[in-house]
Amino acid sequence: MSLLVTGSIGIDTVKTPYGVSEDCLGGSAVYFSMAASFFSPVRFVGVIGSDCPFDLKQVFAGRNVDLAGLEVRARSKTFRWTGTYHEDMDQRTTDRLELNVLAEAPPKVPESFRDSKFVFLANTAPKLQLELLEQIREPVFVAADTMNCWIQEHTKDLKLLLKKTDCLIINEDEARLLACEQNLIKAAKMILDMGPGVVVVKKGGSGSLLCSADGEKFVLPAYPAEGVNDPTGAGDSFAGGFMGYLAQKGNADFETLKTATAYGTVTASFTIADFSLKGLDSISKSDIENRFEVLRKLTRF
Amino acid sequence: MSLLVTGSIGIDTVKTPYGVSEDCLGGSAVYFSMAASFFSPVRFVGVIGSDCPFDLKQVFAGRNVDLAGLEVRARSKTFRWTGTYHEDMDQRTTDRLELNVLAEAPPKVPESFRDSKFVFLANTAPKLQLELLEQIREPVFVAADTMNCWIQEHTKDLKLLLKKTDCLIINEDEARLLACEQNLIKAAKMILDMGPGVVVVKKGGSGSLLCSADGEKFVLPAYPAEGVNDPTGAGDSFAGGFMGYLAQKGNADFETLKTATAYGTVTASFTIADFSLKGLDSISKSDIENRFEVLRKLTRF
Repeated sequence: MSLLVTGSIGIDTVKTPYGVSEDCLGGSAVYFSMAASFFSPVRFVGVIGSDCPFDLKQVFAGRNVDLAGLEVRARSKTFRWTGTYHEDMDQRTTDRLELNVLAEAPPKVPESFRDSKFVFLANTAPKLQLELLEQIREPVFVAADTMNCWIQEHTKDLKLLLKKTDCLIINEDEARLLACEQNLIKAAKMILDMGPGVVVVKKGGSGSLLCSADGEKFVLPAYPAEGVNDPTGAGDSFAGGFMGYLAQKGNADFETLKTATAYGTVTASFTIADFSLKGLDSISKSDIENRFEVLRKLTRF
Repeated sequence: MSLLVTGSIGIDTVKTPYGVSEDCLGGSAVYFSMAASFFSPVRFVGVIGSDCPFDLKQVFAGRNVDLAGLEVRARSKTFRWTGTYHEDMDQRTTDRLELNVLAEAPPKVPESFRDSKFVFLANTAPKLQLELLEQIREPVFVAADTMNCWIQEHTKDLKLLLKKTDCLIINEDEARLLACEQNLIKAAKMILDMGPGVVVVKKGGSGSLLCSADGEKFVLPAYPAEGVNDPTGAGDSFAGGFMGYLAQKGNADFETLKTATAYGTVTASFTIADFSLKGLDSISKSDIENRFEVLRKLTRF
């Protein structure tokens, strides 16, 4: 079934203990689309300024990513993010943030995308996520991401969004903040009470937790990767593998969600091996399938 | 096969966000023995002062724990530890430490215990761990625990111990410190190069990682527990479940080690539900078996 993503396109500068990557391509919609395209065609909605040095057609060449929803806004500047990762690589500091075009009106969802069935609303103001979602006629499964500033300062909008969302994909600190609860299992339950039927808690190097409103649970370790060079985009790549697999299956029952979580984990493990999109760009679907089988073997007892 | 533990008996005062437990029974050998006794008879070696308010015969009544190696030393004082757990419960501060009898000569291993086959050397000075190990005639599988101060200040003794140890059970920060490497998979490989055939890295609420010198790996999430009230003893309970299962099977091949890791995880999940030994004291073997099956189901995809 059709899969639509709305999110950012960014010019990133990333410092990690293993190197520096200046002015490279990033952004949630970019990582998501690259990851999801291994599983399903992707409909891309995002906006850049006229200064953007990347040709997204080139970036996604040979991948089934429809860029009809990419808006290039004259006289606007592209979103920029500069960040530094610390020794343990699960912690990072934002050194500089220039919202630029992301602080303006969001892009429109093109008419040809409005029948999309699987939808991922990457992290942005919940009000904009709602505005984007309203343009989709009959979505089957809507997942959203969010972050600290929206949880703390746009709580009302976020709670409204959660009532219209099937799945929240969130990291562990954000889950604790949203639920005002330290214990992650309890926090997940409290988030489910806010509306979504499913919550996925991402724990970086510690794996992920999937809980449903029906009381089903699934816990998965991270793929034990030796070469972690740049965690940027890991969360969006996870979401891409996860949603891409669901859209491919056209289904979101709990067994399919579990498998999707494993595919998300494996896809993200390639992202973090190299800077920017190089980790995802250099692999084929069979690399993902092989690592999926390794992860299954590594966790089975 | 016979299972021997050498370790501490302590009087603990523990503060967590969920309560305070003053002057309660603790210590590595105590938690280990209680946990291991669900799987295998245990031979207990440890020392207390004449001030110890706990009757260990009573504590282990009905459990197959042989206290022939318990020494009560007149004119000595029992080990005391006071600690505070922080909000995330994986971090704690030692507020007060009185080594007392643990700073004296270690207890002797009784003659009747010297034919033990499975041996767990709980955390203490590596020199003492070596001295205790030398008293065992033909051990089949020796596991040891250690901690920061020995890694940093008794490196030579610890490296000697590792050459005589089949398995190191260590927490993630200690593994990084010992290997001088942030990435846990790389750190585990470097520890294996120091001697043991197997290393188990405990990651608290993030599960555990098992690696063998033959290149085999196993990753397991923590049991997703809602009620975590006191993490004290979790690591020693893990080791108890792990070693107890191996001794029961009389075997330490990789498949058995994987199952043992899952039993260790499940056993520790009961420990942390309540203060001191109450979490372990109130359950039966069938509770462990039920939760083992739940963990298997929770992790399978």
